[in-house]
Amino acid sequence: MKNILVLGATGSIGTSVLDVVRANPSAFRVAGLAARRAGEKLAALAREFPDADIAAVEEGGAAGSGGISLRGRTYRGADAARTLVLESAADTCVAGISGTAGLSPTFAAAERGMRLLLANKEVLVSAGRLFLAAARGGGAAVLPLDSEHAALWQCLEGRDREAVRKIWITASGGPFRTWTEERMAAATPADAVRHPKWRMGAKISVDSATLANKALEVIEAHMLFGFAPEDIGILVHPQSAVHGMVEFADGSWIAHMGICDMRQPASCMLLYPERRPSALPRLDLSAIGRLDFEAPDTGRFPLLGIGLDACRRGGGYPALFNAANEEAVRLFLEGEIAFPEIAPAVAAALRADASAEPSSLEDVAAVHESARRAVTEWRKNGRQAF
Amino acid sequence: MKNILVLGATGSIGTSVLDVVRANPSAFRVAGLAARRAGEKLAALAREFPDADIAAVEEGGAAGSGGISLRGRTYRGADAARTLVLESAADTCVAGISGTAGLSPTFAAAERGMRLLLANKEVLVSAGRLFLAAARGGGAAVLPLDSEHAALWQCLEGRDREAVRKIWITASGGPFRTWTEERMAAATPADAVRHPKWRMGAKISVDSATLANKALEVIEAHMLFGFAPEDIGILVHPQSAVHGMVEFADGSWIAHMGICDMRQPASCMLLYPERRPSALPRLDLSAIGRLDFEAPDTGRFPLLGIGLDACRRGGGYPALFNAANEEAVRLFLEGEIAFPEIAPAVAAALRADASAEPSSLEDVAAVHESARRAVTEWRKNGRQAF
Repeated sequence: MKNILVLGATGSIGTSVLDVVRANPSAFRVAGLAARRAGEKLAALAREFPDADIAAVEEGGAAGSGGISLRGRTYRGADAARTLVLESAADTCVAGISGTAGLSPTFAAAERGMRLLLANKEVLVSAGRLFLAAARGGGAAVLPLDSEHAALWQCLEGRDREAVRKIWITASGGPFRTWTEERMAAATPADAVRHPKWRMGAKISVDSATLANKALEVIEAHMLFGFAPEDIGILVHPQSAVHGMVEFADGSWIAHMGICDMRQPASCMLLYPERRPSALPRLDLSAIGRLDFEAPDTGRFPLLGIGLDACRRGGGYPALFNAANEEAVRLFLEGEIAFPEIAPAVAAALRADASAEPSSLEDVAAVHESARRAVTEWRKNGRQAF
Repeated sequence: MKNILVLGATGSIGTSVLDVVRANPSAFRVAGLAARRAGEKLAALAREFPDADIAAVEEGGAAGSGGISLRGRTYRGADAARTLVLESAADTCVAGISGTAGLSPTFAAAERGMRLLLANKEVLVSAGRLFLAAARGGGAAVLPLDSEHAALWQCLEGRDREAVRKIWITASGGPFRTWTEERMAAATPADAVRHPKWRMGAKISVDSATLANKALEVIEAHMLFGFAPEDIGILVHPQSAVHGMVEFADGSWIAHMGICDMRQPASCMLLYPERRPSALPRLDLSAIGRLDFEAPDTGRFPLLGIGLDACRRGGGYPALFNAANEEAVRLFLEGEIAFPEIAPAVAAALRADASAEPSSLEDVAAVHESARRAVTEWRKNGRQAF
């Protein structure tokens, strides 16, 4: 039985994780739940798991309201999730708070040596080396939770890394895979979040539309698995049945496949090393009929090339890319800039010198801040293209 | 360094294996070569590997002829390959003699406890339980050499068998995948051996055209990996990039992919547990573009259903199926029966009672003989359909 903390309990990752917990009641005890907002969703979870400690970063409708008496502790305020982690006796932590808000509690879980199921991209992208050092120092086992890295993890498990020629991440291609540049120029936020295969938050859906998500995933894979950026390939695969592949030096490929449902990798990684029968729909290859593969088009999707370049340059560049992209996507979602302006905004931020490796979370925060400033400057200075 | 015997050195398996040996001179020493015919091909190999012992079952142009002095021993006659195995100090044996002729030398290698690379289907199909008992008794490690089982072997390696829901074998679909029954009725031997993906001998190419090869492979997989016949699925996949897949109970699939070249699995399994860089062409998924999957059509390819039924019935039925098929394919290749008559000929043989598990190679030979007799009877009695 695993005692589990779910950070980001009301988001898409947390929802999938808690579904897996519900489907396997003998495997998990929910020891704690953290969410950004203390709204009705968190209150409902608090009622469902009355033993759990509850942390809510922002104020709102209180957890434990409505006459339900909760047996767990409750934490409030900016440090609530981090305090929950520090004070919990849980052995397992799902790091599902997205964005930079997830950094501090996830680092706390690493330092405490918890078994850490990682869904927060920023941890590996912006602070990868710091995080891995913290996990090593704390004795934390780090397992990826998103479909691509969970797939690669399963393909690599028990294999000789020296024998690997290349690892491959697949991309659905997003909602604009077949769109022309002209059509993309008029893409609205609603168009961009209409993901063909996965239901996710707005920000990550836009990343999928720009293919920035694949650059972020390459950076994550580089950190998690230790392969050089040039040994991590990307293939656009619109059916999203194959999630990751490993190409060995002898010409053998091992691929991981599964349905497009976050509960699938979540079930896999949460229960690891056990594999329990799942009641999810089965992958049916003859019903899907065909699996397509094509090289990604960095012409129409320049953000992918910009992100991969940040990965190759290393140091603070991945953090710079990550924060500039977060800022530019925010502006796009708020209707402030057009879809094709996301890439030049990020490219402008990457003109700064970020060759130094961040040596603390404060360094990372400074790089993030400089990225946001650069995007603001770019807007002020006439939003030039590349 | 492995000391290797290659049984069936001049056939398609032996040729691929020796190419792998040539590409990895530091890994192998060729200790012996056996072939059915002592023709110029065997003589050339004997000159290339002058230290190897040589066995030729049938007389013909002598190995060692042409003034080349060979340092190894030479064996002749029906028992030559078996004698080579029994007298050799080799540690590794490639069982690449196809048909029933391969049974006796392969059993000898199993009893001697050699590391056995298995390409002969009959060993597992007709005498599976006997063979596995012989290998256990002799302490032989058995590794599959054909692409599908080598793929499954790699997918299953290090995995918990209890967590497997189903294993999947792919089929190219053969040259008649898209042919109507009317068109198949007029198919010539030349049509049937024109395999779209693999270059193989005539018999196995016809098995690929009838899909009998997939029934044989399911029986092999049943024996090698211990899964029940109903837990072994088949998918037609004309690009033949995916060779085998394992579906786990939690919904994860692990698939093995590679180019269509026997040297690929041969390199993999011969060098196991090492993976050495290969100079073979790399699998290029974006160049292939699409991978199709469809359920096999047992209506147009009745031999598949007949073979799967033999697998489910067990006992001597797989041997009966195997020998009846061998005999019917021989008649087809000799122009004696039409392509659509192969299935009813085999079905006629399977009406006999073969429920007893063969308890010796003599029992297997008796089942084989009764299968051949039944096919002959079927011809005499007017070649009735099902």
